[in-house]
Amino acid sequence: MDRERLGKQIEFILEIDKEKEILRQTHLTGHGRRENDAEHAWHMAICAWLLQEYANEKVDIGKVMLMCLIHDVVEIDAGDTYAYDAEGLRSQKEREEKAADRIFGLLPDDQRDALRAVFEEFEAYETPEAKFARAMDNFQPFLLNTSNGGGDWRQHGVTISQVLSRQSKTALGSEELCSVILETLEEHVKAGNIIEDRKKTAE
Amino acid sequence: MDRERLGKQIEFILEIDKEKEILRQTHLTGHGRRENDAEHAWHMAICAWLLQEYANEKVDIGKVMLMCLIHDVVEIDAGDTYAYDAEGLRSQKEREEKAADRIFGLLPDDQRDALRAVFEEFEAYETPEAKFARAMDNFQPFLLNTSNGGGDWRQHGVTISQVLSRQSKTALGSEELCSVILETLEEHVKAGNIIEDRKKTAE
Repeated sequence: MDRERLGKQIEFILEIDKEKEILRQTHLTGHGRRENDAEHAWHMAICAWLLQEYANEKVDIGKVMLMCLIHDVVEIDAGDTYAYDAEGLRSQKEREEKAADRIFGLLPDDQRDALRAVFEEFEAYETPEAKFARAMDNFQPFLLNTSNGGGDWRQHGVTISQVLSRQSKTALGSEELCSVILETLEEHVKAGNIIEDRKKTAE
Repeated sequence: MDRERLGKQIEFILEIDKEKEILRQTHLTGHGRRENDAEHAWHMAICAWLLQEYANEKVDIGKVMLMCLIHDVVEIDAGDTYAYDAEGLRSQKEREEKAADRIFGLLPDDQRDALRAVFEEFEAYETPEAKFARAMDNFQPFLLNTSNGGGDWRQHGVTISQVLSRQSKTALGSEELCSVILETLEEHVKAGNIIEDRKKTAE
Protein backbone atom coordinates (compact mmCIF):
# COMPACT_ATOMS: atom_id res chain seq x y z
CA MET A 1 0.00 0.00 0.00
CA ASP A 2 1.27 3.43 -1.02
CA ARG A 3 0.80 5.51 2.13
CA GLU A 4 1.48 8.81 0.36
CA ARG A 5 -1.29 8.01 -2.12
CA LEU A 6 -3.74 7.12 0.66
CA GLY A 7 -2.74 10.29 2.47
CA LYS A 8 -3.77 12.39 -0.54
CA GLN A 9 -7.06 10.54 -0.85
CA ILE A 10 -7.81 11.12 2.82
CA GLU A 11 -6.91 14.79 2.52
CA PHE A 12 -9.47 15.16 -0.29
CA ILE A 13 -12.10 13.21 1.66
CA LEU A 14 -11.67 15.47 4.68
CA GLU A 15 -11.59 18.62 2.54
CA ILE A 16 -14.95 17.89 0.92
CA ASP A 17 -16.49 17.52 4.40
CA LYS A 18 -16.82 21.32 4.12
CA GLU A 19 -19.60 20.88 1.55
CA LYS A 20 -21.86 20.07 4.50
CA GLU A 21 -21.56 23.69 5.59
CA ILE A 22 -22.42 25.31 2.26
CA LEU A 23 -26.04 26.37 2.36
CA ARG A 24 -28.27 26.55 -0.69
CA GLN A 25 -31.39 28.68 -1.15
CA THR A 26 -33.63 25.61 -1.18
CA HIS A 27 -35.40 24.58 2.03
CA LEU A 28 -35.98 21.04 3.24
CA THR A 29 -39.49 19.60 3.04
CA GLY A 30 -41.90 20.70 5.74
CA HIS A 31 -40.65 24.32 5.48
CA GLY A 32 -37.43 23.21 7.18
CA ARG A 33 -34.01 24.81 7.33
CA ARG A 34 -31.90 25.51 4.24
CA GLU A 35 -30.37 22.52 2.50
CA ASN A 36 -26.60 22.13 2.20
CA ASP A 37 -24.60 21.02 -0.82
CA ALA A 38 -23.79 17.53 0.47
CA GLU A 39 -27.46 16.80 1.18
CA HIS A 40 -28.44 18.12 -2.24
CA ALA A 41 -25.84 15.96 -3.99
CA TRP A 42 -26.97 12.85 -2.09
CA HIS A 43 -30.61 13.49 -2.93
CA MET A 44 -29.82 14.21 -6.59
CA ALA A 45 -27.88 10.95 -6.98
CA ILE A 46 -30.80 8.93 -5.64
CA CYS A 47 -33.22 10.87 -7.87
CA ALA A 48 -31.00 9.99 -10.83
CA TRP A 49 -31.16 6.29 -10.05
CA LEU A 50 -34.93 6.32 -9.48
CA LEU A 51 -35.82 8.48 -12.47
CA GLN A 52 -33.36 7.15 -15.05
CA GLU A 53 -36.25 5.67 -17.04
CA TYR A 54 -37.25 9.24 -17.99
CA ALA A 55 -33.85 10.18 -19.46
CA ASN A 56 -34.05 11.09 -23.15
CA GLU A 57 -31.12 8.82 -23.92
CA LYS A 58 -29.81 5.73 -22.20
CA VAL A 59 -27.31 6.74 -19.53
CA ASP A 60 -24.45 5.09 -17.63
CA ILE A 61 -26.16 5.50 -14.26
CA GLY A 62 -23.01 4.89 -12.20
CA LYS A 63 -21.37 7.80 -13.99
CA VAL A 64 -24.44 10.01 -13.55
CA MET A 65 -24.46 9.25 -9.82
CA LEU A 66 -20.77 10.08 -9.45
CA MET A 67 -21.37 13.30 -11.40
CA CYS A 68 -24.20 14.22 -9.03
CA LEU A 69 -22.10 13.43 -5.96
CA ILE A 70 -19.12 15.60 -6.89
CA HIS A 71 -20.64 18.40 -9.02
CA ASP A 72 -20.72 20.94 -6.19
CA VAL A 73 -17.28 20.26 -4.68
CA VAL A 74 -16.03 23.53 -6.21
CA GLU A 75 -18.50 25.50 -4.09
CA ILE A 76 -16.22 24.89 -1.09
CA ASP A 77 -14.14 27.75 -2.48
CA ALA A 78 -16.53 29.40 -4.93
CA GLY A 79 -19.67 29.39 -2.75
CA ASP A 80 -23.19 28.55 -3.88
CA THR A 81 -24.48 30.73 -6.69
CA TYR A 82 -28.28 30.98 -6.63
CA ALA A 83 -29.81 29.99 -9.96
CA TYR A 84 -31.45 33.41 -10.26
CA ASP A 85 -28.53 35.60 -9.13
CA ALA A 86 -27.50 37.27 -12.41
CA GLU A 87 -24.42 39.01 -11.00
CA GLY A 88 -23.12 35.90 -9.27
CA LEU A 89 -23.63 33.83 -12.39
CA ARG A 90 -21.30 36.09 -14.41
CA SER A 91 -18.24 35.34 -12.29
CA GLN A 92 -19.25 31.76 -11.43
CA LYS A 93 -17.29 29.98 -14.16
CA GLU A 94 -13.93 31.55 -13.28
CA ARG A 95 -14.39 31.06 -9.53
CA GLU A 96 -15.34 27.43 -10.00
CA GLU A 97 -12.46 26.56 -12.34
CA LYS A 98 -9.97 27.93 -9.83
CA ALA A 99 -11.64 25.93 -7.07
CA ALA A 100 -11.54 22.77 -9.20
CA ASP A 101 -7.77 23.23 -9.69
CA ARG A 102 -7.18 23.43 -5.96
CA ILE A 103 -9.64 20.84 -4.64
CA PHE A 104 -9.27 18.05 -7.21
CA GLY A 105 -5.54 18.87 -7.08
CA LEU A 106 -5.41 17.38 -3.57
CA LEU A 107 -5.89 13.90 -5.08
CA PRO A 108 -3.28 11.59 -6.64
CA ASP A 109 -2.82 12.65 -10.28
CA ASP A 110 -4.87 9.83 -11.84
CA GLN A 111 -7.87 10.45 -9.59
CA ARG A 112 -7.50 14.22 -9.91
CA ASP A 113 -7.75 13.84 -13.69
CA ALA A 114 -10.62 11.36 -13.54
CA LEU A 115 -12.81 13.44 -11.21
CA ARG A 116 -11.93 16.68 -12.96
CA ALA A 117 -13.04 15.10 -16.25
CA VAL A 118 -16.36 14.06 -14.67
CA PHE A 119 -16.80 17.59 -13.32
CA GLU A 120 -15.99 19.20 -16.68
CA GLU A 121 -18.32 16.79 -18.45
CA PHE A 122 -21.13 17.89 -16.12
CA GLU A 123 -20.31 21.53 -16.78
CA ALA A 124 -20.20 21.08 -20.56
CA TYR A 125 -23.81 19.81 -20.76
CA GLU A 126 -23.11 17.71 -23.84
CA THR A 127 -23.18 13.97 -23.04
CA PRO A 128 -26.39 12.08 -22.14
CA GLU A 129 -25.01 11.63 -18.61
CA ALA A 130 -24.31 15.34 -18.13
CA LYS A 131 -27.71 16.34 -19.52
CA PHE A 132 -29.52 13.95 -17.22
CA ALA A 133 -27.43 14.84 -14.15
CA ARG A 134 -28.17 18.51 -14.80
CA ALA A 135 -31.85 17.72 -15.17
CA MET A 136 -31.63 16.21 -11.68
CA ASP A 137 -29.82 19.35 -10.47
CA ASN A 138 -32.97 21.25 -11.48
CA PHE A 139 -35.58 18.64 -10.60
CA GLN A 140 -34.47 17.94 -7.01
CA PRO A 141 -34.80 21.54 -5.74
CA PHE A 142 -37.97 21.91 -7.82
CA LEU A 143 -39.49 19.01 -5.87
CA LEU A 144 -38.45 20.39 -2.49
CA ASN A 145 -39.69 23.85 -3.37
CA THR A 146 -43.07 22.69 -4.69
CA SER A 147 -43.49 20.49 -1.59
CA ASN A 148 -43.10 23.73 0.38
CA GLY A 149 -45.75 25.59 -1.64
CA GLY A 150 -43.17 27.43 -3.78
CA GLY A 151 -41.78 29.37 -0.82
CA ASP A 152 -38.29 29.70 -2.28
CA TRP A 153 -39.64 31.39 -5.41
CA ARG A 154 -41.76 33.77 -3.35
CA GLN A 155 -38.89 34.63 -1.04
CA HIS A 156 -36.67 35.65 -3.94
CA GLY A 157 -39.35 37.30 -6.11
CA VAL A 158 -38.54 34.97 -8.99
CA THR A 159 -40.32 35.52 -12.35
CA ILE A 160 -41.69 32.86 -14.69
CA SER A 161 -39.22 33.95 -17.40
CA GLN A 162 -36.34 33.19 -15.04
CA VAL A 163 -37.70 29.79 -14.06
CA LEU A 164 -38.53 28.86 -17.65
CA SER A 165 -35.07 29.87 -18.83
CA ARG A 166 -33.55 27.52 -16.28
CA GLN A 167 -36.01 24.66 -16.56
CA SER A 168 -36.05 24.67 -20.37
CA LYS A 169 -32.64 23.01 -20.12
CA THR A 170 -34.14 20.21 -18.05
CA ALA A 171 -35.71 19.05 -21.31
CA LEU A 172 -32.25 18.29 -22.70
CA GLY A 173 -31.97 15.55 -20.09
CA SER A 174 -35.60 14.53 -19.77
CA GLU A 175 -38.45 15.86 -21.88
CA GLU A 176 -40.92 13.86 -19.81
CA LEU A 177 -39.87 15.35 -16.48
CA CYS A 178 -39.64 18.80 -18.03
CA SER A 179 -43.26 18.61 -19.19
CA VAL A 180 -44.35 17.78 -15.62
CA ILE A 181 -42.33 20.73 -14.34
CA LEU A 182 -43.81 23.16 -16.87
CA GLU A 183 -47.33 22.13 -15.97
CA THR A 184 -46.65 22.63 -12.26
CA LEU A 185 -45.02 26.00 -12.86
CA GLU A 186 -48.20 27.36 -14.42
CA GLU A 187 -50.07 26.42 -11.25
CA HIS A 188 -47.53 28.34 -9.20
CA VAL A 189 -47.88 31.37 -11.47
CA LYS A 190 -51.66 31.25 -10.98
CA ALA A 191 -51.19 30.93 -7.21
CA GLY A 192 -48.91 33.97 -7.21
CA ASN A 193 -45.80 32.09 -6.05
CA ILE A 194 -43.95 32.94 -9.27
CA ILE A 195 -44.22 36.40 -10.82
CA GLU A 196 -45.87 36.51 -14.27
CA ASP A 197 -43.67 38.64 -16.57
CA ARG A 198 -44.24 37.05 -19.97
CA LYS A 199 -46.70 39.63 -21.27
CA LYS A 200 -44.35 42.46 -20.42
CA THR A 201 -41.55 40.72 -22.30
CA ALA A 202 -43.76 40.34 -25.38
CA GLU A 203 -44.80 44.02 -25.50
CA MET B 1 -45.70 8.63 -18.99
CA ASP B 2 -47.41 6.82 -16.14
CA ARG B 3 -48.32 9.62 -13.73
CA GLU B 4 -49.25 7.26 -10.90
CA ARG B 5 -45.80 5.69 -11.13
CA LEU B 6 -44.06 9.06 -11.11
CA GLY B 7 -46.23 10.08 -8.16
CA LYS B 8 -44.96 7.13 -6.14
CA GLN B 9 -41.37 7.89 -7.06
CA ILE B 10 -41.80 11.50 -5.99
CA GLU B 11 -43.43 10.44 -2.72
CA PHE B 12 -40.38 8.31 -1.92
CA ILE B 13 -37.98 11.10 -2.92
CA LEU B 14 -39.73 13.55 -0.61
CA GLU B 15 -39.98 10.99 2.21
CA ILE B 16 -36.24 10.37 2.28
CA ASP B 17 -35.65 14.11 2.63
CA LYS B 18 -36.17 13.36 6.33
CA GLU B 19 -32.79 11.63 6.45
CA LYS B 20 -31.28 15.12 6.52
CA GLU B 21 -32.71 15.56 10.02
CA ILE B 22 -31.39 12.31 11.52
CA LEU B 23 -28.30 13.11 13.53
CA ARG B 24 -25.44 10.70 14.06
CA GLN B 25 -22.91 10.67 16.90
CA THR B 26 -20.08 11.65 14.55
CA HIS B 27 -19.07 15.30 14.32
CA LEU B 28 -17.99 17.15 11.18
CA THR B 29 -14.31 18.01 10.72
CA GLY B 30 -13.05 21.01 12.67
CA HIS B 31 -15.02 19.93 15.77
CA GLY B 32 -18.22 20.93 13.98
CA ARG B 33 -21.83 20.03 14.61
CA ARG B 34 -23.13 16.46 14.45
CA GLU B 35 -23.38 14.87 11.03
CA ASN B 36 -26.72 13.74 9.59
CA ASP B 37 -27.51 10.53 7.74
CA ALA B 38 -27.78 12.11 4.27
CA GLU B 39 -24.37 13.77 4.63
CA HIS B 40 -22.84 10.53 5.88
CA ALA B 41 -24.29 8.56 2.95
CA TRP B 42 -23.02 11.12 0.43
CA HIS B 43 -19.55 11.09 1.97
CA MET B 44 -19.47 7.27 2.13
CA ALA B 45 -20.39 6.94 -1.56
CA ILE B 46 -17.54 9.23 -2.59
CA CYS B 47 -15.16 7.37 -0.25
CA ALA B 48 -16.22 4.14 -1.96
CA TRP B 49 -15.39 5.48 -5.40
CA LEU B 50 -12.03 6.91 -4.30
CA LEU B 51 -10.91 3.93 -2.23
CA GLN B 52 -12.21 1.06 -4.39
CA GLU B 53 -8.61 0.07 -5.20
CA TYR B 54 -8.26 -1.13 -1.59
CA ALA B 55 -11.27 -3.48 -1.73
CA ASN B 56 -10.31 -7.13 -1.09
CA GLU B 57 -12.30 -8.24 -4.12
CA LYS B 58 -13.23 -6.43 -7.32
CA VAL B 59 -16.54 -4.61 -6.79
CA ASP B 60 -19.32 -3.22 -8.99
CA ILE B 61 -18.72 0.34 -7.85
CA GLY B 62 -22.07 1.66 -9.11
CA LYS B 63 -23.82 -0.87 -6.92
CA VAL B 64 -21.61 -0.06 -3.93
CA MET B 65 -22.40 3.64 -4.34
CA LEU B 66 -26.15 2.98 -4.51
CA MET B 67 -25.83 0.79 -1.42
CA CYS B 68 -24.04 3.58 0.43
CA LEU B 69 -26.64 6.14 -0.63
CA ILE B 70 -29.69 4.22 0.56
CA HIS B 71 -28.37 2.12 3.47
CA ASP B 72 -29.66 4.48 6.16
CA VAL B 73 -33.11 5.20 4.71
CA VAL B 74 -34.64 2.93 7.38
CA GLU B 75 -33.39 5.25 10.12
CA ILE B 76 -36.17 7.67 9.17
CA ASP B 77 -38.43 5.41 11.24
CA ALA B 78 -35.93 3.39 13.26
CA GLY B 79 -33.57 6.24 14.28
CA ASP B 80 -29.79 6.12 14.31
CA THR B 81 -28.34 3.39 16.52
CA TYR B 82 -24.90 4.33 17.81
CA ALA B 83 -22.34 1.66 16.98
CA TYR B 84 -21.51 1.23 20.68
CA ASP B 85 -25.08 1.28 22.07
CA ALA B 86 -25.55 -2.37 23.10
CA GLU B 87 -29.21 -2.02 24.08
CA GLY B 88 -30.17 -0.18 20.88
CA LEU B 89 -28.35 -2.75 18.77
CA ARG B 90 -30.51 -5.60 20.15
CA SER B 91 -33.77 -4.16 18.77
CA GLN B 92 -32.19 -2.55 15.69
CA LYS B 93 -32.87 -5.37 13.23
CA GLU B 94 -36.60 -5.57 13.92
CA ARG B 95 -37.07 -1.79 13.88
CA GLU B 96 -35.21 -1.46 10.62
CA GLU B 97 -37.05 -4.25 8.80
CA LYS B 98 -40.38 -2.64 9.66
CA ALA B 99 -39.09 0.70 8.43
CA ALA B 100 -37.85 -0.88 5.19
CA ASP B 101 -41.34 -2.32 4.57
CA ARG B 102 -42.95 1.08 4.90
CA ILE B 103 -40.40 3.32 3.20
CA PHE B 104 -39.37 1.18 0.21
CA GLY B 105 -43.08 0.31 -0.01
CA LEU B 106 -43.80 3.85 -1.17
CA LEU B 107 -42.11 3.06 -4.50
CA PRO B 108 -43.59 1.28 -7.55
CA ASP B 109 -43.27 -2.49 -6.96
CA ASP B 110 -40.28 -3.06 -9.26
CA GLN B 111 -38.23 -0.29 -7.65
CA ARG B 112 -39.40 -1.26 -4.16
CA ASP B 113 -38.05 -4.76 -4.79
CA ALA B 114 -34.82 -3.54 -6.37
CA LEU B 115 -33.90 -1.11 -3.60
CA ARG B 116 -35.02 -3.50 -0.87
CA ALA B 117 -32.72 -6.12 -2.36
CA VAL B 118 -29.81 -3.68 -2.33
CA PHE B 119 -30.59 -2.81 1.30
CA GLU B 120 -30.83 -6.48 2.34
CA GLU B 121 -27.60 -7.24 0.51
CA PHE B 122 -25.87 -4.50 2.52
CA GLU B 123 -27.32 -5.86 5.75
CA ALA B 124 -26.31 -9.46 4.96
CA TYR B 125 -22.59 -8.59 4.71
CA GLU B 126 -21.90 -11.40 2.22
CA THR B 127 -21.16 -10.03 -1.26
CA PRO B 128 -17.96 -8.15 -2.12
CA GLU B 129 -20.09 -5.01 -2.65
CA ALA B 130 -21.75 -5.28 0.77
CA LYS B 131 -18.46 -5.96 2.52
CA PHE B 132 -16.81 -2.96 0.91
CA ALA B 133 -19.81 -0.65 1.47
CA ARG B 134 -19.82 -1.65 5.14
CA ALA B 135 -16.09 -1.01 5.33
CA MET B 136 -16.88 2.52 4.12
CA ASP B 137 -19.64 2.79 6.74
CA ASN B 138 -16.88 2.26 9.33
CA PHE B 139 -14.06 4.13 7.59
CA GLN B 140 -15.89 7.42 6.93
CA PRO B 141 -16.79 8.18 10.59
CA PHE B 142 -13.35 6.87 11.62
CA LEU B 143 -11.77 9.55 9.40
CA LEU B 144 -13.99 12.34 10.73
CA ASN B 145 -13.42 11.27 14.31
CA THR B 146 -9.63 10.98 13.99
CA SER B 147 -9.54 14.38 12.26
CA ASN B 148 -11.21 15.69 15.43
CA GLY B 149 -8.65 14.10 17.76
CA GLY B 150 -10.89 11.17 18.66
CA GLY B 151 -13.46 13.36 20.40
CA ASP B 152 -16.42 11.08 19.63
CA TRP B 153 -14.71 8.14 21.36
CA ARG B 154 -13.84 10.27 24.39
CA GLN B 155 -17.35 11.67 24.65
CA HIS B 156 -18.88 8.20 24.77
CA GLY B 157 -16.19 6.52 26.90
CA VAL B 158 -15.61 3.91 24.21
CA THR B 159 -13.19 1.04 24.92
CA ILE B 160 -10.65 -0.48 22.55
CA SER B 161 -12.48 -3.83 22.70
CA GLN B 162 -15.62 -2.15 21.39
CA VAL B 163 -13.81 -0.38 18.57
CA LEU B 164 -11.85 -3.49 17.60
CA SER B 165 -14.99 -5.58 17.54
CA ARG B 166 -16.55 -3.15 15.07
CA GLN B 167 -13.48 -2.39 13.00
CA SER B 168 -12.42 -6.04 12.69
CA LYS B 169 -15.28 -6.36 10.21
CA THR B 170 -13.77 -3.60 8.10
CA ALA B 171 -11.15 -6.18 7.14
CA LEU B 172 -13.81 -8.22 5.37
CA GLY B 173 -14.14 -5.36 2.87
CA SER B 174 -10.59 -4.04 2.90
CA GLU B 175 -7.68 -5.58 4.77
CA GLU B 176 -5.46 -2.71 3.68
CA LEU B 177 -7.69 0.01 5.12
CA CYS B 178 -8.31 -2.05 8.23
CA SER B 179 -4.58 -2.27 8.93
CA VAL B 180 -4.33 1.53 8.73
CA ILE B 181 -7.26 1.83 11.12
CA LEU B 182 -5.77 -0.61 13.64
CA GLU B 183 -2.48 1.26 13.65
CA THR B 184 -4.23 4.57 14.27
CA LEU B 185 -6.40 3.10 17.02
CA GLU B 186 -3.33 2.16 19.03
CA GLU B 187 -2.22 5.79 18.90
CA HIS B 188 -5.60 6.85 20.26
CA VAL B 189 -5.39 4.31 23.06
CA LYS B 190 -1.95 5.69 23.98
CA ALA B 191 -3.33 9.24 23.88
CA GLY B 192 -6.19 8.25 26.19
CA ASN B 193 -8.95 8.89 23.64
CA ILE B 194 -10.02 5.25 23.68
CA ILE B 195 -10.17 3.31 26.96
CA GLU B 196 -7.73 0.38 27.21
CA ASP B 197 -9.67 -2.65 28.46
CA ARG B 198 -7.82 -5.55 26.83
CA LYS B 199 -5.81 -6.55 29.88
CA LYS B 200 -8.94 -6.69 32.03
CA THR B 201 -10.63 -8.95 29.50
CA ALA B 202 -7.63 -11.32 29.50
CA GLU B 203 -7.48 -11.68 33.29
